[in-house]
Amino acid sequence: MSLFRTQVQKMEGYTPGEQPQESGWVKLNTNENPYPPSPDVKEAVQKALEGRLNIYPDPLATEFRKVASELFQVDPDWILPGNGSDEILTILMRTFVDPNEIVSAPYPSYTLYETLAEIQGARFQKIQLQPDWNWPVADALEVAAKSKILFVPNPNAPSGNRWPDEDLLSLIPTEGVLVLDEAYGDFCDRPHRCEVLKAGFGEKIVVTRTLSKSYSLAGIRFGFAVAHPELIRGMRKVKDSYNCNTLSLAAATAALKDQDWMQANTNRIRTTRNQLITQLSDLGFEAVDSQTNFVWCTHPDREHERRYQELKRRKILVRYMKFSLEEGVLDGLRITVGTDEEVGQVVDALREIG
Amino acid sequence: MSLFRTQVQKMEGYTPGEQPQESGWVKLNTNENPYPPSPDVKEAVQKALEGRLNIYPDPLATEFRKVASELFQVDPDWILPGNGSDEILTILMRTFVDPNEIVSAPYPSYTLYETLAEIQGARFQKIQLQPDWNWPVADALEVAAKSKILFVPNPNAPSGNRWPDEDLLSLIPTEGVLVLDEAYGDFCDRPHRCEVLKAGFGEKIVVTRTLSKSYSLAGIRFGFAVAHPELIRGMRKVKDSYNCNTLSLAAATAALKDQDWMQANTNRIRTTRNQLITQLSDLGFEAVDSQTNFVWCTHPDREHERRYQELKRRKILVRYMKFSLEEGVLDGLRITVGTDEEVGQVVDALREIG
Repeated sequence: MSLFRTQVQKMEGYTPGEQPQESGWVKLNTNENPYPPSPDVKEAVQKALEGRLNIYPDPLATEFRKVASELFQVDPDWILPGNGSDEILTILMRTFVDPNEIVSAPYPSYTLYETLAEIQGARFQKIQLQPDWNWPVADALEVAAKSKILFVPNPNAPSGNRWPDEDLLSLIPTEGVLVLDEAYGDFCDRPHRCEVLKAGFGEKIVVTRTLSKSYSLAGIRFGFAVAHPELIRGMRKVKDSYNCNTLSLAAATAALKDQDWMQANTNRIRTTRNQLITQLSDLGFEAVDSQTNFVWCTHPDREHERRYQELKRRKILVRYMKFSLEEGVLDGLRITVGTDEEVGQVVDALREIG
Repeated sequence: MSLFRTQVQKMEGYTPGEQPQESGWVKLNTNENPYPPSPDVKEAVQKALEGRLNIYPDPLATEFRKVASELFQVDPDWILPGNGSDEILTILMRTFVDPNEIVSAPYPSYTLYETLAEIQGARFQKIQLQPDWNWPVADALEVAAKSKILFVPNPNAPSGNRWPDEDLLSLIPTEGVLVLDEAYGDFCDRPHRCEVLKAGFGEKIVVTRTLSKSYSLAGIRFGFAVAHPELIRGMRKVKDSYNCNTLSLAAATAALKDQDWMQANTNRIRTTRNQLITQLSDLGFEAVDSQTNFVWCTHPDREHERRYQELKRRKILVRYMKFSLEEGVLDGLRITVGTDEEVGQVVDALREIG
């Protein structure tokens, strides 16, 4: 007899992504930002180190919430910080979803939603996107209506496309919440600013954000939710009292204050991304017009796995992904937008590999 | 209609403990260590700051687990790190407990166990301790037997007493796990070293540890579980992939390596604690023979709340606690063992207050 919950017993164990510890790799597989965070981050952490680490952090993250609320033009009680936006997704699940209730998400998209639904004992329903990454409107409406949470990454991963707010507003669950996971929001040509929360049905929407991507802070684990205070109030009951530590709070606050730094980096990445898309097309790939810091591409010859292996042999890591569809399989390569040099290397290698 | 789960809707909102932001307070209310962490911690964090914060942390916490496993004389796959031991308690709940199953804990003890059980939709059963803080053996056996998890802080909070391992081994649930929360374990006159895991029923026990207290690192949020690899394997499925960040991993690893520093501080605190117990007795209090960094005391006149308020008026914060028992109420003061000077101030003030 297993001591574990049935859900946990039958789950696959977590397999961490490829994170080679030795140097010499061109690492374009986990959507990290190739540029360092604002120098203000280091300064803020050093200052926090001079303070008292023997004392608990501020459980209300007062300073961070103040800065975030100014950025999004809301009151601080609209903001809930977390230990990475992954923790925010967990908190959402535990705040809103009872066992056997329905949690849904577009497919293909971020695989963590299904894992979190499994842990919570919820029923997970995929909404299979059309081949052009648009919504299958009738199916989507039907599934969304009965969901406790519909998770939508916008822009989507691994495709990188962004849906218009209007499309998503029509998908708000009848008795649940729409979670807009804007992990890659700052990379859009016209970045979001949580405008959608101020529209008519805003009180049933939660926006999640991370500092891992646009702010170059994957290492400090910091994300946050933006939502109407009534929703935040429930989510706060579920979170650990001290879920963010003194050093990451200092780092996140400093990073958010330095918008110029973040925007300079996301601008550079956008430029490199657009070059990458063009170069991939020149090589015969079909590349999605990405609004993120990665590009999803497929080749008419479907030899994606071979190319992934050939790249890996050259110490270039990209992500090979494979999804089972209702009919057949979709696979392809997801390439993180690194520096110009790194992207040049992957393009040269793909040209050579053929 | 509420969008929240019923459990969440009916829960009390979290009220953070008193954390005055201005200086000038003698703060003996949240069991923080009055001494700073090892200087190696600052050095390790500074070194990590020179590294790449734009890259995800090691999801397996390889270096930390190596150091912790050497300390406890187990293999690294016996160790699971978390964002504070509070996160470990949450992971335990989600790994082992289905809705409506029984979770139990002695009472009075750490109030978080009940909150976490509520969030999970479990049935929480208190095992009311005897007035001398011993177990009510027959009741305890009955409740423990049917529990999915029995949480036991050892030493206990707020009482500070430690139970012999033999007492606890008899309480292992028939089809569940015994969680020994050793947050204060390093303050015992003879500290634990997870010996209990190597005894006959070790495969049904999880020990949790924190760096917040003995290692003076409440600010970095770091705790970990020690258990048989089979249990750790299930718990790992439930945790967020990157639940510990680069800076806190560096801090925690450095702190654990500097055992001399931690032991020098816990020795000082033990000496101050024993003085405090004597002085409280001299003032007419009954003080538990604590094995932690706090002292629980009551006075025959039961005027604990008045004393708490009088202390607060003098800018001395201690914890006034009140528990509803099967018959009547138990209240008293829990005083954190600060520096000799701080403890001198609280004793002088209590003498003056009368």
